[in-house]
Amino acid sequence: MSTASLRQQEIAEIREAKYQTRRATVPALEEILYEAIPVLDHGFIRVVDYMGDDAAIVQAARVSYGKGTKKLNEDAGLIRYLMRHWHSTPFEMCEIKFHVKLPMFVARQWIRHRTANVNEYSARYSILDREFYIPQPEQLAAQSKANRQGRAETLTGQEAAQALQWLKDDAAQCYDHYQAMLNEDAAGNVIDESRRGLARELARMNLPVNAYTQWYWKTDLHNLFHFLRLRADAHAQYEIRAYAEAMIDIAKKWVPLATQAFEDYRMNAAALSAQGLAIVKRMLNGEQVTQETSGLSKREWAELMETLGR
Amino acid sequence: MSTASLRQQEIAEIREAKYQTRRATVPALEEILYEAIPVLDHGFIRVVDYMGDDAAIVQAARVSYGKGTKKLNEDAGLIRYLMRHWHSTPFEMCEIKFHVKLPMFVARQWIRHRTANVNEYSARYSILDREFYIPQPEQLAAQSKANRQGRAETLTGQEAAQALQWLKDDAAQCYDHYQAMLNEDAAGNVIDESRRGLARELARMNLPVNAYTQWYWKTDLHNLFHFLRLRADAHAQYEIRAYAEAMIDIAKKWVPLATQAFEDYRMNAAALSAQGLAIVKRMLNGEQVTQETSGLSKREWAELMETLGR
Amino acid sequence: MSTASLRQQEIAEIREAKYQTRRATVPALEEILYEAIPVLDHGFIRVVDYMGDDAAIVQAARVSYGKGTKKLNEDAGLIRYLMRHWHSTPFEMCEIKFHVKLPMFVARQWIRHRTANVNEYSARYSILDREFYIPQPEQLAAQSKANRQGRAETLTGQEAAQALQWLKDDAAQCYDHYQAMLNEDAAGNVIDESRRGLARELARMNLPVNAYTQWYWKTDLHNLFHFLRLRADAHAQYEIRAYAEAMIDIAKKWVPLATQAFEDYRMNAAALSAQGLAIVKRMLNGEQVTQETSGLSKREWAELMETLGR
Amino acid sequence: MSTASLRQQEIAEIREAKYQTRRATVPALEEILYEAIPVLDHGFIRVVDYMGDDAAIVQAARVSYGKGTKKLNEDAGLIRYLMRHWHSTPFEMCEIKFHVKLPMFVARQWIRHRTANVNEYSARYSILDREFYIPQPEQLAAQSKANRQGRAETLTGQEAAQALQWLKDDAAQCYDHYQAMLNEDAAGNVIDESRRGLARELARMNLPVNAYTQWYWKTDLHNLFHFLRLRADAHAQYEIRAYAEAMIDIAKKWVPLATQAFEDYRMNAAALSAQGLAIVKRMLNGEQVTQETSGLSKREWAELMETLGR
Repeated sequence: MSTASLRQQEIAEIREAKYQTRRATVPALEEILYEAIPVLDHGFIRVVDYMGDDAAIVQAARVSYGKGTKKLNEDAGLIRYLMRHWHSTPFEMCEIKFHVKLPMFVARQWIRHRTANVNEYSARYSILDREFYIPQPEQLAAQSKANRQGRAETLTGQEAAQALQWLKDDAAQCYDHYQAMLNEDAAGNVIDESRRGLARELARMNLPVNAYTQWYWKTDLHNLFHFLRLRADAHAQYEIRAYAEAMIDIAKKWVPLATQAFEDYRMNAAALSAQGLAIVKRMLNGEQVTQETSGLSKREWAELMETLGR
Repeated sequence: MSTASLRQQEIAEIREAKYQTRRATVPALEEILYEAIPVLDHGFIRVVDYMGDDAAIVQAARVSYGKGTKKLNEDAGLIRYLMRHWHSTPFEMCEIKFHVKLPMFVARQWIRHRTANVNEYSARYSILDREFYIPQPEQLAAQSKANRQGRAETLTGQEAAQALQWLKDDAAQCYDHYQAMLNEDAAGNVIDESRRGLARELARMNLPVNAYTQWYWKTDLHNLFHFLRLRADAHAQYEIRAYAEAMIDIAKKWVPLATQAFEDYRMNAAALSAQGLAIVKRMLNGEQVTQETSGLSKREWAELMETLGR
Repeated sequence: MSTASLRQQEIAEIREAKYQTRRATVPALEEILYEAIPVLDHGFIRVVDYMGDDAAIVQAARVSYGKGTKKLNEDAGLIRYLMRHWHSTPFEMCEIKFHVKLPMFVARQWIRHRTANVNEYSARYSILDREFYIPQPEQLAAQSKANRQGRAETLTGQEAAQALQWLKDDAAQCYDHYQAMLNEDAAGNVIDESRRGLARELARMNLPVNAYTQWYWKTDLHNLFHFLRLRADAHAQYEIRAYAEAMIDIAKKWVPLATQAFEDYRMNAAALSAQGLAIVKRMLNGEQVTQETSGLSKREWAELMETLGR
Repeated sequence: MSTASLRQQEIAEIREAKYQTRRATVPALEEILYEAIPVLDHGFIRVVDYMGDDAAIVQAARVSYGKGTKKLNEDAGLIRYLMRHWHSTPFEMCEIKFHVKLPMFVARQWIRHRTANVNEYSARYSILDREFYIPQPEQLAAQSKANRQGRAETLTGQEAAQALQWLKDDAAQCYDHYQAMLNEDAAGNVIDESRRGLARELARMNLPVNAYTQWYWKTDLHNLFHFLRLRADAHAQYEIRAYAEAMIDIAKKWVPLATQAFEDYRMNAAALSAQGLAIVKRMLNGEQVTQETSGLSKREWAELMETLGR
């Protein structure tokens, strides 16, 4: 039986079990608990555990003794008020734990968010699977000229085909040599009894950063939202955004009121600088403002006009 | 109906409700969930929510897909290994949320532990109860001469009686004036319609630090153990130790294997300095070592002999 | 010689000394280094040490090898870009250490900002001075009706006089009894040789939270700005705002470009929700929008109109 | 002029400049400020800035107003006391900033220490150099059988030669294709005008984790020591240990008293479990204890005997 299907069976077994609890419970999240949601070509994200719900945010804000909740619309109003006025501590009272499989270069961006707990698969200790992220053709984008850290239009034709071929071939060759240095085949059997095999902590250095790793990642809701604001943003790299978007869908099942507030006051909100606000006021007073009369640099003026949809 | 009994009823109601969950569940902790465990004269601590169990530590250590647990004794062995070798991240995968009522001077020590989430009752927003910590007579200790931040023997007679009287009377008077400045009585009714009442955020400054406050405090197991090692220690102030000891009892119900490992490798463990270790080796080789021949200062020598029970 | 003047002399001595360094140095901040800037009636804030300057932010952003700086206007542009786009890590590369004397109730608000290093004066170990914050008459404000955690107009006449009297008298009496329980006078002499004196860690609990404490507080520039955005805000309690405003003045000397960017993009910036932004767009297109047609609650509509100065 | 020598010149220029400061200054550290200390084959570590010295630890512990230091031997005693009794906050009052060049797989271990500030070179934005870590022959170790995450004896002969060849060749080929996908040569010139070049954020995924990256890493002394205890330990991977050892040498120049205390009470100290301590006491009382009579598992018994040098 393959490793993958064995795991499927284990997950099915865990999902079968049901326990009684007095804790706040979210049926919509229980529905998908432990289920692996596919992301990219070989990755996934699944919820392993959670603490709290929308009511827990309200309860903390009131430091109340019991349910702490009143009518649903009052709770929604309070949650929106807290989000709007940057009262972040009540959102820290909810916690979620994910199991994520992701390419190493995505893991390196992700880990920059420090306020989280992490247990990563150790390639010092274990052997990594032969799995590498290879972009879909439509994701194979040219370097942007305008944005030094962005993508432009999709590459096509020979250039695209060649890039994909290199990515696949180099990953395969690096993995072949990784395995040969370890002196172990896919089933964990020694290849050549006359050799010792290189230490795992050394052999792994031959793997490219599109190799998949996995980890448990646990964070509170405030820090999750902070992560999502930056990583679900249109300027984030597509590959991490794919995970962020899956997490927003999960958050909607878990804490729908808080997630709606997050979308309205963070994700889809606009920040106007002191200067930008002054310009908006002038425009609302009927003045025709141009970049020249705005006092803004060309870049900031362009950003403001984009924000205002003009 | 008094506030206190209303709350009792609310808690009873919450405890009545039962939900189905697929999450890791700890029956022994469920048993006491939401129940207020009394600490000091008016304080309490109660578990409001939790995430994970002993198996979750093992699961994170193995970054496994499913239950991740094998036989119970193997789990215990792995947990002890992790604790012994300072592999702290798997312990961060468990989380607990407490509701605590505690004197402000205890809260000020407690909050120095920064890796936790906190929502405190706001005296800018609400009115504090007339509740103050007054030590039991047997806790009314003299200043230690040996340890500048410690206690010596219990005070007795007139000195003790006078101290208790001052603590009680000053607290009562400060609270009376707090209420008078607020211009609100205990039931929240305006006392004198001709007055405005001082802002709550100002009036509260008249309260002494033995006034009770309360908060939600949420932390992961690794940081909880770190807190407990320092605050359940014999050198910690008695008043915070009382909370720490209640939390150790809770931890035993929640994660018995991890708590046992914590007690063996942290709480009741001994740290020997490089010099202390060298001395132990000399002693084990049969050498008679004295402070003079030890190379240690008198203070460190005394500490070492105490550790070794000599 | 009194304690205060002794300290003045020590500070003067330290300020006298000059060392040679290869580190980034900010003359305008050196000018005030160690000097106590008065805040409230007995408090102060003084800069004890710092690391980095505006150029260090640029340098980190470029992970450059050397000065990393180009022309001054390019640096300013990059710093403003980083602030505008929430690239916070380069601002973490500057660090500052303050020595602050502040009322305990202010310290309790302040400490909620966890990403900082703190060493506080220990009343378990030492004896606190007889110093209490007593508001200036113009700060003695009534409770706001509109904002449950805010102030309204200043109290006057008998109500104000009475409140001030209580604050002063209760503090004085609490301190008298604190000293009597300690059995030590102001000069540290035993008052009554026949008594032991209550342990310091216990006696301190008789002091009200307007007693002054002091601490060293060290943080990076990103977290300092986050603190200042919340605590220099008009909704923050006046007493902590007084410290925040002194710190903004200090930041202007230390990192003038970053502080200007902070004021433009954070402190004086406006956040528009998704709904608020849509309304602004409608208004800019000439539509007359009212609260009824806005889709906003009355509260949010009022907040938006205030932001837009209408 | 090559990039490397240009940088050398920049560093020399910065080192030339001297400023006057009132801040605590450490001549021994100034001596090496900005100088790149070589680590591994292409890596380095250099101190870019620092805050505080041994006296700053003492000063914070005393929350004193001025120098806060007394006689040197008293300072040493206090620092040792603080270290011995886990009073960690005074050590947080010193801060250091490093510029590090390191292989990505080392960076991935390093970043797990979260209490630090980091700015890493961005391969989304810039092009990485053609530099890869290739172990020295004596570091090319076999996988340990005893320790699943450790190394055994050095590989030799054909197996070693083959491993080194693969590491070199695969890195070279991956980099060639990286560059070809970018469509830029080493000098940054477009290779083929008819092609667009793959986005940098995508092309980088073809690089193996022995590629070098670099970052600014800033942390306080307490967290630096925590890092060093784990990463300078004999069980840490050799490649990160090489950096940790260089940092210990730096710490000795910067804060010699604190570093000595760290070595005595942490680095070279021993932790005895409750059971281990009981066994030592029995042995000191002349009892012959064996694994069988110890109550310890074989593994723990072996660890204890190793600690005691028996």
